[in-house]
Amino acid sequence: MPAPTLLVLEADPPPRLGRLTGKARIVSVDEAGLAAELPHADTLLVWDFTSDAVRNAWPGEGPRPRWVHTASAGVDRLLCPELVDSDTVVTNARGIFEAPIAEYVAGLVLAMAKDLPGTLELQRQRRWRHREGLQVAGSRAVVIGAGPIGRAVAGTLRALGVTVAVTGRTARPGVHGADQLDRLVIRADWVVSAAPLTDATRGMFDARLFGLMQPSARFINVGRGQLVVEDDLVAAVSKRWIAGAALDVFAREPLDARSKLWDVPGLIISPHMSGDTVGWRDRLGEQFVDLYELWAAGKPLPNVVDKKRGYVPMHD
Amino acid sequence: MPAPTLLVLEADPPPRLGRLTGKARIVSVDEAGLAAELPHADTLLVWDFTSDAVRNAWPGEGPRPRWVHTASAGVDRLLCPELVDSDTVVTNARGIFEAPIAEYVAGLVLAMAKDLPGTLELQRQRRWRHREGLQVAGSRAVVIGAGPIGRAVAGTLRALGVTVAVTGRTARPGVHGADQLDRLVIRADWVVSAAPLTDATRGMFDARLFGLMQPSARFINVGRGQLVVEDDLVAAVSKRWIAGAALDVFAREPLDARSKLWDVPGLIISPHMSGDTVGWRDRLGEQFVDLYELWAAGKPLPNVVDKKRGYVPMHD
Repeated sequence: MPAPTLLVLEADPPPRLGRLTGKARIVSVDEAGLAAELPHADTLLVWDFTSDAVRNAWPGEGPRPRWVHTASAGVDRLLCPELVDSDTVVTNARGIFEAPIAEYVAGLVLAMAKDLPGTLELQRQRRWRHREGLQVAGSRAVVIGAGPIGRAVAGTLRALGVTVAVTGRTARPGVHGADQLDRLVIRADWVVSAAPLTDATRGMFDARLFGLMQPSARFINVGRGQLVVEDDLVAAVSKRWIAGAALDVFAREPLDARSKLWDVPGLIISPHMSGDTVGWRDRLGEQFVDLYELWAAGKPLPNVVDKKRGYVPMHD
Repeated sequence: MPAPTLLVLEADPPPRLGRLTGKARIVSVDEAGLAAELPHADTLLVWDFTSDAVRNAWPGEGPRPRWVHTASAGVDRLLCPELVDSDTVVTNARGIFEAPIAEYVAGLVLAMAKDLPGTLELQRQRRWRHREGLQVAGSRAVVIGAGPIGRAVAGTLRALGVTVAVTGRTARPGVHGADQLDRLVIRADWVVSAAPLTDATRGMFDARLFGLMQPSARFINVGRGQLVVEDDLVAAVSKRWIAGAALDVFAREPLDARSKLWDVPGLIISPHMSGDTVGWRDRLGEQFVDLYELWAAGKPLPNVVDKKRGYVPMHD
């Protein structure tokens, strides 16, 4: 029996797939080649997780892979109604990005509390100007997103002495329901977006929600760019409705050099890097091989996405 | 019986001394006026802790205050042989600066691990350039200084998953002796200076010690500027012996606008602010009043400095 065909959507080849030799016939495609190869693939690895090609190509003619794995936490770029309604199993890279993103958020919180951006600007000007920082311990955060990333962020902030509330779609132990969001945002010093992008969350951070925040509050988005109405955020920061913000994700990536987001005072812009620590590509490759071996053996897969909800449900 | 005379060395008046009304005759002096008033003071509050005036004026003629309190953690600017050899009790502001400094150091560690300075520079240039951060959890730090500040720094870094060794003058439970420093520095990712400035520590961070560090190591000084041979640090960072450094304290403060330290790539310069969070002056004033009430009642004082060692010894 021939080895199953593993289609890999990639811009750069994934590392660490050597263990698949003899167990899979690997066919690499770019965005343009995906549609033609989809009917011949048993499984699909979405290595280029910044691509919309799967969502665009999936509705075409012919058989479809029975399993799709994406080397990302979010699956919003992948899912189309035809994939959601199919029997194809979708898995994600849960387990790789949580700890790095939690550290990244903690770093932003501390940097904003201690005005590190101001320090670096004054250093450029060779100016000695003492300022008073904020104490992070004892401050309040609300983390929107009760998946593994949101929970990891909450855990790291709690380790710094922050009082953290986590909100999710529905209330459950340790998680507030979406109906509690306004109440929590009103008193938060830090509002951290780590939600999946779904129809329910798209554009949720808008003028109304920024208007509820304290003037001393700061907003951080490490979820998906389209969770935020970017024009509303620019207004909120520019008009000092809130004290500052940091965005690692954007509605369109890479952010255009002409975007007005780049030079809003009080807004930190980073290039979708919060989860990416040295060795992350190796870890993503190894994780896929682990899953592939389970799949080839007919065993149940972890990290299975609830396609209707748009994320991997938490069971604890 | 008249109220005792409390001499306050200040540039700006301390807040929160209202509770002393009727309990102390408060005489404020600046640096120039200190010598003339010292013989008439029962106690001395060194509110302007950046001044060398006490060390200079103390050796003069006449009686001396029986108690000196400094609104700082370090007492290096204060102590002269005549004060060390006298019966005068010296107390410091232990308890005020520990938690803020620990947060500040954690913020620097995370900012350097995630290259936040690089992100801000790229933002200025409107350039989207993805980079990979370092994971802080699992990295190794050595904190030099086993006093309350060093221990607080160690605790906060440990909360982030860092493996931390603390070194002090002598080995004791949880603290490595100075003889272990080289061994620990060689394998550290983060070398944090939180030591008191004494004859034993002055200039301890020099070319020899920077030469022992890994090329990927980073150095942070929140202790005293004179712990570091600044020219050696400039060389170590410039020549990439180490990956970066952050200095919050300097041999001469404020740092001169012409200092070469300002624009060494990879070196973060901040204006001695690591311990100073909003409300810190109020907390320093309240702490002094608490101590004053103990002193006036003839009760033992906390935070008593071992003048020969140059810091408050830890007893746990």
